[in-house]
Amino acid sequence: MTRTTLFLGGARSGKSRLAQQTAEACAGPLAYLATAECRDGEMEDRIARHRADRGERWRTVECPLALPAAIASVETGAVLVDCLTLWLSNLMLGEHDIAGATEDLLDAIAGSPLPIVIVSNEVGMGIVPDHPLGRTFRDAAGRLNQAVAGQVNASYFVAAGLVLPLQRFPG
Amino acid sequence: MTRTTLFLGGARSGKSRLAQQTAEACAGPLAYLATAECRDGEMEDRIARHRADRGERWRTVECPLALPAAIASVETGAVLVDCLTLWLSNLMLGEHDIAGATEDLLDAIAGSPLPIVIVSNEVGMGIVPDHPLGRTFRDAAGRLNQAVAGQVNASYFVAAGLVLPLQRFPG
Amino acid sequence: MTRTTLFLGGARSGKSRLAQQTAEACAGPLAYLATAECRDGEMEDRIARHRADRGERWRTVECPLALPAAIASVETGAVLVDCLTLWLSNLMLGEHDIAGATEDLLDAIAGSPLPIVIVSNEVGMGIVPDHPLGRTFRDAAGRLNQAVAGQVNASYFVAAGLVLPLQRFPG
Repeated sequence: MTRTTLFLGGARSGKSRLAQQTAEACAGPLAYLATAECRDGEMEDRIARHRADRGERWRTVECPLALPAAIASVETGAVLVDCLTLWLSNLMLGEHDIAGATEDLLDAIAGSPLPIVIVSNEVGMGIVPDHPLGRTFRDAAGRLNQAVAGQVNASYFVAAGLVLPLQRFPG
Repeated sequence: MTRTTLFLGGARSGKSRLAQQTAEACAGPLAYLATAECRDGEMEDRIARHRADRGERWRTVECPLALPAAIASVETGAVLVDCLTLWLSNLMLGEHDIAGATEDLLDAIAGSPLPIVIVSNEVGMGIVPDHPLGRTFRDAAGRLNQAVAGQVNASYFVAAGLVLPLQRFPG
Repeated sequence: MTRTTLFLGGARSGKSRLAQQTAEACAGPLAYLATAECRDGEMEDRIARHRADRGERWRTVECPLALPAAIASVETGAVLVDCLTLWLSNLMLGEHDIAGATEDLLDAIAGSPLPIVIVSNEVGMGIVPDHPLGRTFRDAAGRLNQAVAGQVNASYFVAAGLVLPLQRFPG
């Protein structure tokens, strides 16, 4: 199996399910690194439902900000990161250093011996957002996706639950 | 020829033209299942122009809501559905049961012996929409696209009039 | 090498870098046809920084509107157009004839003997924009991308710095 894999797709593209299946094909315990923060009851319900859906092989680690450390702390089995764009959103809301955090993330991915499966959102294929914050976010998301895709062993573009294997250019 | 095909793409990606060409490669009469509703004169003009462009092999069936029944009612030739996202929008505006309608659609596709070509929009690759209705719509569209792509024989991602053949994962 | 190439992608997808690398693999001097207009100091800084980054093989031609003439005027080496969607935006702001300008562009591409690498944005994969101008722009961008992709020798869909080679359909 490929050690590190990125599933990049739009909203409700099926990327999390594909990432979960990929992690479940690995041996050993499974760490679900959740970057979502509960901000309301609706979200709490959804997170609890997803956690129950994943079943007993999974252990959930909430890491809205400390994702690199969470990756480094997993010692056996496989790791699922869901998702990069929520992590980025949390970093931006807290006015953290995005470039530094990205570097820490790449180091954590490179430093782990385990299979790591990463989920991220493609957010740059609509028209230019009206609000400056929207533009800043989509620029930062694009840069983060490029950085991570440049480091992992395989990247898939996801649409409608199906995939397109992204290729380096020139091949 | 592949019995059922999905063309999924952005606005003005050329997906309808590719779908039309695919249907026209089939033998027999052609049924154009139009989910658009005329809401103004501009739209009426555009629909009339498109209808004239398609030519005499085509028969147009307007089915803003009753798409599953329209698919089931075609007995010979080939079927083009244009498009799923407008159908979804009509269902949501009328506060219909989306999950039930999706199931009816999948049943109608599975139950037909005819070639069926389906057009749908990818709407989930911009930043998170400001309005709750926008978020609900793009979530529902993503789920519908996954459901249909999971059932048809071939799915293509369309951009700039060209295609990328979507693949099941793992292959 | 392929004579004419299109890199189509979202915001911060890495498409400009890939296009630049493609042009730099060509022999001779390199013409950077910049469609961006300096509208503020931030943009001026960014343009100057990009220009410095490109290095000495590159000559920059600012052509916010006169892109077809700029392509025709390059007599040796290779041409990079960055980007089509900004050119379209400038045309629309100035209320120019988009269809005529598109035809001139296609003629200029066809008429040049040089390698031409073109960058454009995919903007049609979010939800329907609220503002009529946004809808008009994304429709026009989709049509322009289709026209150019239909003429060039190779088109790539870009995401996260990686590519998917777009294919004609049927193949």
